[in-house]
Amino acid sequence: MSRAFNFSAGPAALPEPVLRRAQAEMLEWGGARASVMEVSHRGQDFVECAAAAEAALRRLLSVPGDYQVLFLQGGATQHFAQIPMNIASGRSSDYIVTGHWGEKAVAEARNVCPVRVVASSVDDAYRSIPDLAAADFDPAAAYVHYTPNETIHGVEFHHIPEVGDAPLVADASSTILSRPLDISRFGVIYAGAQKNIGPSGLVLLIVRSDLLDRAPDSLPSILRYSAQSQNDSMLNTPNTFAWYLAGLVFEWLEGEGGLTAIAERNQRKADLLYASIDGSGGFYSNPVAVAARSRMNVPFVLRDPKLDKAFLAESESAGLLALKGHRAIGGMRASLYNAMPLEGVAALTTFMADFARRNG
Amino acid sequence: MSRAFNFSAGPAALPEPVLRRAQAEMLEWGGARASVMEVSHRGQDFVECAAAAEAALRRLLSVPGDYQVLFLQGGATQHFAQIPMNIASGRSSDYIVTGHWGEKAVAEARNVCPVRVVASSVDDAYRSIPDLAAADFDPAAAYVHYTPNETIHGVEFHHIPEVGDAPLVADASSTILSRPLDISRFGVIYAGAQKNIGPSGLVLLIVRSDLLDRAPDSLPSILRYSAQSQNDSMLNTPNTFAWYLAGLVFEWLEGEGGLTAIAERNQRKADLLYASIDGSGGFYSNPVAVAARSRMNVPFVLRDPKLDKAFLAESESAGLLALKGHRAIGGMRASLYNAMPLEGVAALTTFMADFARRNG
Repeated sequence: MSRAFNFSAGPAALPEPVLRRAQAEMLEWGGARASVMEVSHRGQDFVECAAAAEAALRRLLSVPGDYQVLFLQGGATQHFAQIPMNIASGRSSDYIVTGHWGEKAVAEARNVCPVRVVASSVDDAYRSIPDLAAADFDPAAAYVHYTPNETIHGVEFHHIPEVGDAPLVADASSTILSRPLDISRFGVIYAGAQKNIGPSGLVLLIVRSDLLDRAPDSLPSILRYSAQSQNDSMLNTPNTFAWYLAGLVFEWLEGEGGLTAIAERNQRKADLLYASIDGSGGFYSNPVAVAARSRMNVPFVLRDPKLDKAFLAESESAGLLALKGHRAIGGMRASLYNAMPLEGVAALTTFMADFARRNG
Repeated sequence: MSRAFNFSAGPAALPEPVLRRAQAEMLEWGGARASVMEVSHRGQDFVECAAAAEAALRRLLSVPGDYQVLFLQGGATQHFAQIPMNIASGRSSDYIVTGHWGEKAVAEARNVCPVRVVASSVDDAYRSIPDLAAADFDPAAAYVHYTPNETIHGVEFHHIPEVGDAPLVADASSTILSRPLDISRFGVIYAGAQKNIGPSGLVLLIVRSDLLDRAPDSLPSILRYSAQSQNDSMLNTPNTFAWYLAGLVFEWLEGEGGLTAIAERNQRKADLLYASIDGSGGFYSNPVAVAARSRMNVPFVLRDPKLDKAFLAESESAGLLALKGHRAIGGMRASLYNAMPLEGVAALTTFMADFARRNG
């Protein structure tokens, strides 16, 4: 056996050099005479490792000084609830919904504060980005939430939306670090790690400092972003292994040329796959409006769904893993996160063309 | 360099065979052609891995069928708040406090429900277990909470307390799996993984099924134990690497003979260290009442604190790591979790005797 091209939507492929480094250091990390998993999060070695990871992340995203960077737990889903707990202040919030994850964010927030869905592409089966010019933003909203990239539906905002004066909050789980981003446009950006950051069990949250004051006194401290910020995300024991591994991923990204370089590579990867789908004479198709197509998650269907099973079995044999689409929409999906090399996408498109020729 | 005997209080030493296995599988796990960190938590491979870990845990602790086993996130600290959110039902709860962690549990619970501290050893500087016969348990309490082992103060209950009819809730972070335990005596047992289970970022929670119905409708689903139970702890993406590693630890424990065998070894380790302290003619001392001494965390002070610095430097040079006591009480602390072999404790006591001879 050997490692294959892994198109998993998440937990997703990690850069192989990162895994090799973690493997080499698994029993003895630096001079610690122990694994990174076996040392105190408050010891000098780990504190330096954690700070270096944050510094690299700040360099990669040019995070302004008035933003805090937190390394938390609970997955993005926990923060669907925790964000309104911290910043809704009893006011209502506006949500833009462009797919499955936006729906989930709304459902959790409704337990915490009044929620208004001000724009949605549900009537288009989440195949597009809604026209925000028509959206009825509430000038008094606590915040406006959206999902820059929808992993299941393969729909991505290619610009940061204009939403008025309320702070913009983004679940960037499946797009963060895939290209440069103007952090100053956001109130909160948060992301589960398991796509472009590291292993699951870690959430990165970048929050504008002034929003930290909004939490009600009754909120337990462990759920308060301000308390985590005051304690450098170590109010309690963090997920140290994931934090360490995220630091290795950030280091790898800087070595690859940073976000401008990775964005160019990601664009080439996506262009190659969409061209292969669009050029298949209808054998494969992607249902998303061209202007809203995701560069990270590419869902596609075969004209004849009876071929799905053969496509999946043969692609797996060819070393192309995890191409089955989400059960919510069926078909196929190829996730092209940062760790997927261009050669992996080339191998996929070569396989797809060959499969179409043999079965067309 | 080489691995040393690591007395860290947590994140703590892991069994070396577990680390070697994780190292070998870091790039290719089973037949997955990917790391365990890179596969979907909903794929067959990981679902089987997760179920095997739960089954092993159930065998080790003889968990009765009417208890659910959850693999969650947030650390024990998050569950200080989340437990009352789930099971207080607006009623007050009773707490027994025997150290730092009990205090923290009280502080977080107070944000959620009325809390009564019914017994505490604070007046004895947490050097003993309070007399529970004198405790004023509320028969209508939602639950009674205690900390079977206090990591910082080195105080342990050597029996399960009688608390009346309210469900008993235990933060067993630093004692779970160190010996057999009658789960049927508890309503909830929870534990951060980073002592006897695996790496940080994972919380094990064992809950009697009937308690799952108590959560108010307004509780966000991601914080509801019932929702996690219905979804096999995969309501959202779990910490897959920690879950996998916990499974390897459980497998290792079964190979070592299970909890009866590990309890005997743990008792021998603790006996050896306490004998060394008590037999030092006062050069070293442990302040805890003998009947309440912890088998997992042994704090001790040197008669002459001016020697602390030399003790720490020389012990580290001798391959005995992380012996510095918690800043809250100073001195030294040796944590003797399951992964610490008897030879490690023997090396420590040999060093201590030698250090005392040279400096006495």
